[in-house]
Amino acid sequence: MTAAYSMPVRVYYEDTDAAGVVYHANYLKYMERCRSDWLHAAGCDVERIRARFGILFAVRRATIDYLSPARLCDELSVTLLVLKLGKVTLDLEQSVHRGEVLLCKGVLRLASLEPGSLKPKIMPDQLLELVDRPTT
Amino acid sequence: MTAAYSMPVRVYYEDTDAAGVVYHANYLKYMERCRSDWLHAAGCDVERIRARFGILFAVRRATIDYLSPARLCDELSVTLLVLKLGKVTLDLEQSVHRGEVLLCKGVLRLASLEPGSLKPKIMPDQLLELVDRPTT
Amino acid sequence: MTAAYSMPVRVYYEDTDAAGVVYHANYLKYMERCRSDWLHAAGCDVERIRARFGILFAVRRATIDYLSPARLCDELSVTLLVLKLGKVTLDLEQSVHRGEVLLCKGVLRLASLEPGSLKPKIMPDQLLELVDRPTT
Amino acid sequence: MTAAYSMPVRVYYEDTDAAGVVYHANYLKYMERCRSDWLHAAGCDVERIRARFGILFAVRRATIDYLSPARLCDELSVTLLVLKLGKVTLDLEQSVHRGEVLLCKGVLRLASLEPGSLKPKIMPDQLLELVDRPTT
Repeated sequence: MTAAYSMPVRVYYEDTDAAGVVYHANYLKYMERCRSDWLHAAGCDVERIRARFGILFAVRRATIDYLSPARLCDELSVTLLVLKLGKVTLDLEQSVHRGEVLLCKGVLRLASLEPGSLKPKIMPDQLLELVDRPTT
Repeated sequence: MTAAYSMPVRVYYEDTDAAGVVYHANYLKYMERCRSDWLHAAGCDVERIRARFGILFAVRRATIDYLSPARLCDELSVTLLVLKLGKVTLDLEQSVHRGEVLLCKGVLRLASLEPGSLKPKIMPDQLLELVDRPTT
Repeated sequence: MTAAYSMPVRVYYEDTDAAGVVYHANYLKYMERCRSDWLHAAGCDVERIRARFGILFAVRRATIDYLSPARLCDELSVTLLVLKLGKVTLDLEQSVHRGEVLLCKGVLRLASLEPGSLKPKIMPDQLLELVDRPTT
Repeated sequence: MTAAYSMPVRVYYEDTDAAGVVYHANYLKYMERCRSDWLHAAGCDVERIRARFGILFAVRRATIDYLSPARLCDELSVTLLVLKLGKVTLDLEQSVHRGEVLLCKGVLRLASLEPGSLKPKIMPDQLLELVDRPTT
């Protein structure tokens, strides 16, 4: 339940907007990249999870706090911490830092879904084990 | 305090992902388009608000519930309701519907900022009046 | 062969970058929105073309000239002209204007593909007729 | 004139569309990330080039050939080769490979601009030297 993971992200023009800062929706992209790399590091990327377990993770709920802006060429660090692991849900805390400064913090609930119907599907034990382990 | 606004959005390939649905971060884009059009309809788009009042709105906090997926070619309706208008903050409820079906619901806090420093800046009365009126 | 179509686009924060202008890749999104709306106006959107004809259009080649920048809140017009219609390809000229000013011009070759294999697939006559007609 | 550079990219959900492949406009994002990292590796990222030399690079023309699709979780390699270096333009060849397979190839002309006016600005010798050297 204490799995933690961190990945670096550089800010490119594509991430910024005319206010000179990272566009708010793009922090959700950074967080998804971090989740994908975390699963990949655990030995099973999102594509293999779909192929092997017939499961797809979708964001069900996200609460995002924007505390300080990131700018072009910033070197950021995106983190992930598993808060709670259920049978069909996965609660995560994710953050974006520049050095020691917390820029953005999110609490996300992911749902485990069947790819075709997009209905909730119970995660098999093998998948739960992959998700529920420290990867640092 | 009861200002409400609605705009249509069509779903293009750019909005979707390999799961065959609208990518979760893109609902935040739809909501921002709705806010921009709402200000435009009130007689003052975001660019003129920056030029005339020296103010820029930034998302400070967003809580998004994803209830049902949107798909390619869907015709959606994005709405906005002012929940609370402060001196330096603006609380909104925004939703995305396909017909009568609620797909996504958000509560957002916007902050009124000075464009250069990105520090909070009190909205002048003229801007408050623009924001605080029904536009339907 | 003279099918022409035009659609309006407003520039939102999501479209811009830290240089204060529309990010170059986003003109390709505008052009794709225009193609989608053009097919929709011809009576058959991309989703129905996939379902009814088993065909998906993919960009095979794009040459884009960026002549002048678009900015936040600009009201643009995106156009489409069919240059040449083959059995498995569709050559288009697309442009983005702000008023009379040409900002961006593209020549694109689309390929008609089978959705699963993504291999070339000959367009049936019914689809060719839809594509090959004036829609203004 | 033979400067070459390569960077890895993983494909995330944000990059894909409902056809199950990387959305065509996103290859331009990959290519821009590669250009940014190349300049960064040469000792001067785009932000410092703006601050130090008063110069911003903008895409003036892009010809992109889409040869084969990339998919979710693919590990790609994005490359850059300087074709020609002028006083106010920079011609590049860029490609995206998955292993040995060439997926996408682009020829791009960048213009050296003054950030405020966005008018052409001659690159100083110091900047030319940074750009015109092998970085592999």
